Amino acid sequence: MAAVAQDFTAEPSMAKSIISHPLCPLTASEISTTADLVRSVWPSNVDLRFKVITLDEPAKKQMIPFLEAEHSGSPLPAIPRKSFVSYYIRNTDRFHEAVVNLSAGKVESNVRLGPNVHGNGDYDEILQVEKNALEDEEVKAAIAKLQLPAGTAVCADPWIYGSDGINDDDRLYQVFLYMRDPANAGELDSNHYAFPLPISPVIECNHYKVIRIDYLPTGADNTVHEPRPYQAVPANEYVHEYQELRKDLKPLHVLQPEGASFTLSPAGETGHVLEWQKWSFRVGYNQREGMVLYDVRYDSRALFYRLSLSDMNIPYADPRHPFHKKSAYDLGDAGAGAMANNLQLGCDCLGHIQYLSAVITDDKGSPVPIENCVCIHEQDAGIGWKHTNYRTGRAAVTRGRELVLQSIITVSNYEYILAFMFNQAGEVIYEVRATGILSTQPIDHDLDTVGVPFGTVVHPGVLAAHHQHIFSLRIDPMLEGHANRLVYDEAHAMPLSKDWNPHGVGYTVSETLVETASGLDLNPDTNRVFKIQNSSVRNPINGKPVAYKIHAPPFQKMLAHPSSFNFKRAEFADHNIYVTTHRDRELYAGGWYTNQSRGGTGVRSFASRQDSVVDTDIVVWVQFGINHVPRIEDFPVMPCEILKVSLKPVNFFTKNPALDVPPSVQSFNQSTLVSEVHRQPAVESVVGGKAACCDNAKAGKGKL
Amino acid sequence: MAAVAQDFTAEPSMAKSIISHPLCPLTASEISTTADLVRSVWPSNVDLRFKVITLDEPAKKQMIPFLEAEHSGSPLPAIPRKSFVSYYIRNTDRFHEAVVNLSAGKVESNVRLGPNVHGNGDYDEILQVEKNALEDEEVKAAIAKLQLPAGTAVCADPWIYGSDGINDDDRLYQVFLYMRDPANAGELDSNHYAFPLPISPVIECNHYKVIRIDYLPTGADNTVHEPRPYQAVPANEYVHEYQELRKDLKPLHVLQPEGASFTLSPAGETGHVLEWQKWSFRVGYNQREGMVLYDVRYDSRALFYRLSLSDMNIPYADPRHPFHKKSAYDLGDAGAGAMANNLQLGCDCLGHIQYLSAVITDDKGSPVPIENCVCIHEQDAGIGWKHTNYRTGRAAVTRGRELVLQSIITVSNYEYILAFMFNQAGEVIYEVRATGILSTQPIDHDLDTVGVPFGTVVHPGVLAAHHQHIFSLRIDPMLEGHANRLVYDEAHAMPLSKDWNPHGVGYTVSETLVETASGLDLNPDTNRVFKIQNSSVRNPINGKPVAYKIHAPPFQKMLAHPSSFNFKRAEFADHNIYVTTHRDRELYAGGWYTNQSRGGTGVRSFASRQDSVVDTDIVVWVQFGINHVPRIEDFPVMPCEILKVSLKPVNFFTKNPALDVPPSVQSFNQSTLVSEVHRQPAVESVVGGKAACCDNAKAGKGKL
Repeated sequence: MAAVAQDFTAEPSMAKSIISHPLCPLTASEISTTADLVRSVWPSNVDLRFKVITLDEPAKKQMIPFLEAEHSGSPLPAIPRKSFVSYYIRNTDRFHEAVVNLSAGKVESNVRLGPNVHGNGDYDEILQVEKNALEDEEVKAAIAKLQLPAGTAVCADPWIYGSDGINDDDRLYQVFLYMRDPANAGELDSNHYAFPLPISPVIECNHYKVIRIDYLPTGADNTVHEPRPYQAVPANEYVHEYQELRKDLKPLHVLQPEGASFTLSPAGETGHVLEWQKWSFRVGYNQREGMVLYDVRYDSRALFYRLSLSDMNIPYADPRHPFHKKSAYDLGDAGAGAMANNLQLGCDCLGHIQYLSAVITDDKGSPVPIENCVCIHEQDAGIGWKHTNYRTGRAAVTRGRELVLQSIITVSNYEYILAFMFNQAGEVIYEVRATGILSTQPIDHDLDTVGVPFGTVVHPGVLAAHHQHIFSLRIDPMLEGHANRLVYDEAHAMPLSKDWNPHGVGYTVSETLVETASGLDLNPDTNRVFKIQNSSVRNPINGKPVAYKIHAPPFQKMLAHPSSFNFKRAEFADHNIYVTTHRDRELYAGGWYTNQSRGGTGVRSFASRQDSVVDTDIVVWVQFGINHVPRIEDFPVMPCEILKVSLKPVNFFTKNPALDVPPSVQSFNQSTLVSEVHRQPAVESVVGGKAACCDNAKAGKGKL
Repeated sequence: MAAVAQDFTAEPSMAKSIISHPLCPLTASEISTTADLVRSVWPSNVDLRFKVITLDEPAKKQMIPFLEAEHSGSPLPAIPRKSFVSYYIRNTDRFHEAVVNLSAGKVESNVRLGPNVHGNGDYDEILQVEKNALEDEEVKAAIAKLQLPAGTAVCADPWIYGSDGINDDDRLYQVFLYMRDPANAGELDSNHYAFPLPISPVIECNHYKVIRIDYLPTGADNTVHEPRPYQAVPANEYVHEYQELRKDLKPLHVLQPEGASFTLSPAGETGHVLEWQKWSFRVGYNQREGMVLYDVRYDSRALFYRLSLSDMNIPYADPRHPFHKKSAYDLGDAGAGAMANNLQLGCDCLGHIQYLSAVITDDKGSPVPIENCVCIHEQDAGIGWKHTNYRTGRAAVTRGRELVLQSIITVSNYEYILAFMFNQAGEVIYEVRATGILSTQPIDHDLDTVGVPFGTVVHPGVLAAHHQHIFSLRIDPMLEGHANRLVYDEAHAMPLSKDWNPHGVGYTVSETLVETASGLDLNPDTNRVFKIQNSSVRNPINGKPVAYKIHAPPFQKMLAHPSSFNFKRAEFADHNIYVTTHRDRELYAGGWYTNQSRGGTGVRSFASRQDSVVDTDIVVWVQFGINHVPRIEDFPVMPCEILKVSLKPVNFFTKNPALDVPPSVQSFNQSTLVSEVHRQPAVESVVGGKAACCDNAKAGKGKL
């Protein structure tokens, strides 16, 4: 494969000289240096297995003066460059974390963690688990009982084990087995999720050996029977060559003849500053969160110190062993940064595309490129605003343009398309598209058309259990400064009153201040809207505090019982909003280490301090999600389900910030009339390339 | 202006010969014939003022066998062609409705309506009201008290009067006055909403004379003071030439080099059949609803008999006279069809665009073209589905394509962009974008930075009152036939149980049948999802009834008191969902005549019959909306606020219906790399025009 831009052969000592900004991700050489420094504190015969080597972000109290100096052009304070490391002593359960001071060339801290603190899975480990599961003699013997057709290829999907508190202090994998279509065993991309097997090996993580084989319940209850001979079912492939493809889709191209409107400026090897339509911010990237945006400003006004997807949890509905432990934390257990797809031009993005690549560590502490893990492009977003003066017939109209930063992650069967979007009206949108393949399990054929209430049959003998997707978006605001507050508006009917509301139609909007760190909920019935405010900066026209409001869709919060491990671990899953005071290491809503976690280390715990959150450095955590009750239409690969969270200015500007977007006119947009069959008067003046302009034309009613 | 396609000079008798389908909108000559026939029942000296001449849609019991015959290729039953008419005896309050049998050339029914039944406003009338209000001597005298600068141009915005039961049996207009920027009085497109005046004439509708002048409360309470001399404030213009336009937006073009993927087939003069990506339906259009879709099918399977926006209501929050009566029904009071913008190529739509035009009546019963009132185009909708096999690195990915039918309506100050969208996964989306200018009123300057709790100050001296937008989408389903039912799913935690749910994680989904016509609500806390089902047609794989589910955002339902006129009139505004049995004339959720309506004629009344709605011909009414608490960013013209309702198949197909969409590949999409600064290995093979294909490439991780 192609080499990447970073020069992995550089001397470690060179790293220091090319760091242009304290928020730039670690370079390849910084990763190598970090690994070397951590190894140096151990005897040379101790082999380390690295899990994470990433930027140890400077303390915010250091960064605030740095950013102030940077934006005012003052001399920049020196901030030591540090890396954060988590690692195992290889082939043991001894898990450590360390902080390395790269500027000083020394390991600053190095501690062993535990018990019940485990590192994330990684790609090499997952391949090892697959291999060992399939090569295990007892597993082979169990599979033999299924009497699969000769030549059948069995696949293993290692799952993070989950937690139920029963013999799970050690780090484990639960492996679900499938087979590729036995009628087409040579097809490496056969959809094995259409052929789940009722056998599930459990693997320990020191030597990745099988310690147990679970047999799966396949009926309507808990009963587990001995593996029965396989009954043939048809395949259900998703790859294109097995479909009769529709032939009537014509190409649609997006062209920007003058190039893209954004400017991406490299900052050192790994950093990027992005500027577009008055927006500016830094794009960071790490193993866990993937994209992180820092220092987000609009027209130079400070908005957000840091934005990232902080966590997600996917608990499943099947109460039976071992399915009851299925509860994935794809960021903490695997890493959105580590699992990012290599995005391909013309496949994953349409139009004029810029790609970013990143670098993380492998298990040996060597830098690994994550190529094209972020794509950046503009997209048309339909009409931005319009008004027609019906008296003159004049229409003033603009099209909305959005800037999109997109990553796609594959976590085993499933895909998430994660995007930050910015528009010209001062809005930030975080979009999640859920796609990929449902996690499936076998179900007895006599239940195919009867079903079970905790899942949907999506193929003969194939059950997709219901599950929730619960996301946590972390917003570290700095609206016109770092002293912010969270309030919520509600609309309430005025009481009937002869003097003041005699007709019973009046209603008012009241604002409530959130005083202490807590979890809070949406309420569509009162139109409750949360706003992040700076109460000391007032709108010059109407005197309201400048604010950004949060638009997030309501969702069913975690269904698991408060006493359950699922509930205790997913510390963000019980409220739409959490607000906490800022602390540097409090980045992840589910806690720093989610793999087989026990709870007590996430945002619910941060909030339990009940700190005052009034006019101080706060963090707002926005939860959103879906209860995914599978449809058969979600198989063999599901059409994207789209979720959006928007941050919108409220009395932050003095008028519509998109007012200065140029008019939407044909000379700019160059649209095409499909057919002259239906008359299009405006077009008659376009002949010869001179465009009719709806801005100047009297584009009113036919009668005018 | 340009002529339209319809031949208005045709003899009325020719109309019959060119009608190709009973659901085609009336032709121009049918409108003329209708007016002639209605006039013929009156003495020749009686002058009629037509409000509506539109297709009287055939009874569904006639249409069902017609459609069955049409789709099976059988001989078509004859269905008489009829028109529906509402009209006044000019200069009187005598309001009538008639049905004309065009096939028989006779007036079938003709009845006088009332009391308290009033016709909609129309364009000619609104201009007349404006003129008369401004020319009234008492109004001029009142304006004089404001001591406006010399040369000031005053504008009048006639508002549908509303209802409070106080001396409002007659049809009236409440006129709100504004002025154009006095410093720039010659600018016809000056935003007068930045200069509201505290004087409001009331006009009767026989001769459109001023009957009263209301003085507006401008303080924090009900106090009304004598008009005070005008205090100068700055302008706040929205038209482009008054902005310093941003200069860094580069063009973005959408090209379809092989043309659009849809086929639009004319059906007679006014009808259209649209086919795209397995979808087919008829596009109708009328004065009130604008676009109406009929006979919507996917892959020839019946889905929806009729889809339209049925109604909308915008009640305001200010409890004070006369603002308490502000409660607009833009469809029933004015008409989405009548108020549609003339869409301009390259301004209102981007890409390859097809336009449709329509024809309605003017007040004299003459056909009036509504040109380019619907635009049709395809748009890219991002990734449709994706899965990467992490073992082989192969990504299978498709882009989603949507078909959009868009209309834009201007109702005085405000705009709605209304669109039906179809995708390749069998989904229908109805999208509303709210834009345009807030309805404003004067507020005393001493309240500029203090405000009032029922509105937002958006400019010095300018208050935008809070208001709700409540929409009703009417779904007349025919899922695999006309016997359908409505059910809803809910997800509930399983009780803790040692045997069955020992870990407290299980949950199940239960389905509840709606047995009788009623209003029902969403409940995000139980993930309540409504589904339209055909219980007699089962999914061949999993045995579930075929269904379409409704995704609609929860919203705050009407805040006005149940005893208020606002509440009684908006019969749809109190529930997310209504389900009723089908009756031919029950098309509008707020009732047939909304202008100064009294209630009792909308969907709440239809539902009060409590008909059984199980496995019969049902209609489902989906309400959605926003409580618009204005931000200053919504002025002088608001960035689009977007609302979506989706109809999605649930166990209707046997797998993802978009599985057969061709792969997203560079040879098809022709994307462009913005810069070579960041390496893009895949592109290296594109040089020379040969595209790299993510479908064939091993597009996995960098490590592979």
